[in-house]
Amino acid sequence: MAQINENYRKLAAGYLFPEIGRRVRSFGEANPAARVIRLGIGDVTLPLVPAVVAALHEAADDMGAPERFKGYGPDQGYPFLVDAILAHDYAARGITRHADEIFVSDGSKQDSGNIQEIFGQECRICVPDPVYPVYVDTNVMAGRTGRANQRGQYEGILYLPATEQNDFVPDPPAERVDIAYLCSPNNPTGAVASRENLARWVAWARRHDAVLIFDAAYDAFLREPSLPHSIYEIPGADECAIEMRSFSKRAGFTGLRCAYTVVPRGVTGSTGTGERVPLRGLWARRHATKFNEVPYVVQRAAAAVFTPDGQKQTAEQIDYYMENARRIREELGAAGFRAFGGQNAPYVWLRTPEGLSSWDFFDRLLREAHVVGTPGSGFGPSGEGYFRLSSFNSHENVDEALARIRRAFGR
Amino acid sequence: MAQINENYRKLAAGYLFPEIGRRVRSFGEANPAARVIRLGIGDVTLPLVPAVVAALHEAADDMGAPERFKGYGPDQGYPFLVDAILAHDYAARGITRHADEIFVSDGSKQDSGNIQEIFGQECRICVPDPVYPVYVDTNVMAGRTGRANQRGQYEGILYLPATEQNDFVPDPPAERVDIAYLCSPNNPTGAVASRENLARWVAWARRHDAVLIFDAAYDAFLREPSLPHSIYEIPGADECAIEMRSFSKRAGFTGLRCAYTVVPRGVTGSTGTGERVPLRGLWARRHATKFNEVPYVVQRAAAAVFTPDGQKQTAEQIDYYMENARRIREELGAAGFRAFGGQNAPYVWLRTPEGLSSWDFFDRLLREAHVVGTPGSGFGPSGEGYFRLSSFNSHENVDEALARIRRAFGR
Repeated sequence: MAQINENYRKLAAGYLFPEIGRRVRSFGEANPAARVIRLGIGDVTLPLVPAVVAALHEAADDMGAPERFKGYGPDQGYPFLVDAILAHDYAARGITRHADEIFVSDGSKQDSGNIQEIFGQECRICVPDPVYPVYVDTNVMAGRTGRANQRGQYEGILYLPATEQNDFVPDPPAERVDIAYLCSPNNPTGAVASRENLARWVAWARRHDAVLIFDAAYDAFLREPSLPHSIYEIPGADECAIEMRSFSKRAGFTGLRCAYTVVPRGVTGSTGTGERVPLRGLWARRHATKFNEVPYVVQRAAAAVFTPDGQKQTAEQIDYYMENARRIREELGAAGFRAFGGQNAPYVWLRTPEGLSSWDFFDRLLREAHVVGTPGSGFGPSGEGYFRLSSFNSHENVDEALARIRRAFGR
Repeated sequence: MAQINENYRKLAAGYLFPEIGRRVRSFGEANPAARVIRLGIGDVTLPLVPAVVAALHEAADDMGAPERFKGYGPDQGYPFLVDAILAHDYAARGITRHADEIFVSDGSKQDSGNIQEIFGQECRICVPDPVYPVYVDTNVMAGRTGRANQRGQYEGILYLPATEQNDFVPDPPAERVDIAYLCSPNNPTGAVASRENLARWVAWARRHDAVLIFDAAYDAFLREPSLPHSIYEIPGADECAIEMRSFSKRAGFTGLRCAYTVVPRGVTGSTGTGERVPLRGLWARRHATKFNEVPYVVQRAAAAVFTPDGQKQTAEQIDYYMENARRIREELGAAGFRAFGGQNAPYVWLRTPEGLSSWDFFDRLLREAHVVGTPGSGFGPSGEGYFRLSSFNSHENVDEALARIRRAFGR
């Protein structure tokens, strides 16, 4: 008798974004004339830049040419992409990383969901609250937690509230934890960890022999030069931190799929008998056994992001989205909302008006303004009473959405 | 203290194909003048067909056009691809499957490695021996087994020897097993399960409330009309079988990455208290939480395989490879080898000459003929003394490899 993995039954609800999709579809079916504006799911809206499209065409031709066709590629990614990553994302910031530490993948969602597989079942994890739900859900599915309480907090996970009091950036906990997920610029709050905050996390991890999983999917949106782009800007991080980066938001790859994870040679875990084991080897084994490479055509497209044209064209797209973020934050602030984030991140984090719950505000915003956002409570209990708006849309749609929100809720 | 997943330490050796890669690189460095011919890893060599390349170009243009750009796609795949799969791979064979049962993915390796996650830890699995190593290795990594014995068999897994006595197609076991992996046409033996054999497996699964995981990655190579392409040709399979298919070998997608898994609505597992739970929902939750869609450009390319041009062009490639398989099987048979498979599959399965072990034959073949194959023992203990040759190469290279093998080992 095939028994199921009953840990799946502990999951409190459907994965957040499909649930939003269901409610939006249902509204659209009931109100076919409504022009719904989507500032919900963090999906980009601008097309791929010309440098990337040109690389896709060239690579497609390679795949059709007998002498240039590519079958299975190197396990961790083609050198042309790995070398570009090392040069632009690390060496250019004074950071030395090595090719065998880079693992090209098809998404940070996948990487941040799969990374827990290389750790023991007994590891205790902590997450900021609210946070991207994949970190928690994949640990629940793996059996590393108990059931959820009424607030939606799973037994065995330590939640670190990210609140207005700590500017939405928690410090390390006092108690013992083995694995800490961090995300900066943060999804969903748009808050950014300072160098000092990350230094406290690195010191904490080294003191407790813990591992940091640093999700930097949104680093391209950092505007203030003093803010760290990589955890490896902090001395000692290469002994305790795994870093994840993505092309999804920096270059509009949500529908093209490319990301990478960095596991430095010096990051180790422990066996039950205290033997130190490099995590790099474990992740390499997982990558070789449960993954195949990112499509060659996509790796070529990702490498084009690092060319001078690619850099310039993608920077213009980021600027475009950040102008949206500025408008959302400033106009809703002027309309009486408490609005956070949006200055070094594509997300604005709102306090819901009139004491509405996150889902009640979602439903009213959809019904009264025909605007889709993301309920803060979908990211964790401390997100209750908050709401995420994304800047991924056109200026025109953002302006129209803001006008509608002001009409429906403004003071 | 972050503890590692110690199940990884049970893995007997590195994943097979990287180990082959290391030995070939080492040989190449020591013998730079040698022209090595690769009949080892099952990687295609012909370029993508024109219909697929044209679809890639069109889709790349879509991604660069504001009004046609695609970000995140539907969780289980675009309808244009799912519908083509349903029509060509199922309806055309008289099989009714439903769109919500199809999960488009980036590879059967991934799917066959990830599928175990939806089952309970206590499930007992059985595999044909030899078999594609991912089925076993991912269950080891998940902690569903004990350690390996001296023959490389993991405690807790039931191995069903595929031998010359049973024409390399085992029947279901007498004892209780919860999950059975099947692969037909088989990798590595090239053997094919008959309709009668599959009917016995389906009857067994229904009697024991077990789940069959049927890997049909090589069905495009079937030549004999009576042989089943899908497990769903067997009545009752839609209550007990999950099926996996790939574009890798049927259309040369090893470097482009597209596959799919079918989880019929009627296939269920059990909770500890005996409640029946549809596996489709569990796999959908995993897919939504730990995966993002296959790139839009790749889904367009996969859909092009089903167009009349795509069907004709890919069929010609399959014919080309099958001519290689015929030459390998017949010529090595004439040279005194015992050769199997290669008639409905791209692999020929050889008995090693002179009683050599699989790896000893690998090393001698590389050293004396400069030909790379795959040691049978890498696929399981019953593969010891056998060797896999792949037909994925040019006619010229295959002829040259055969001439060299005959010189080195022929009688």
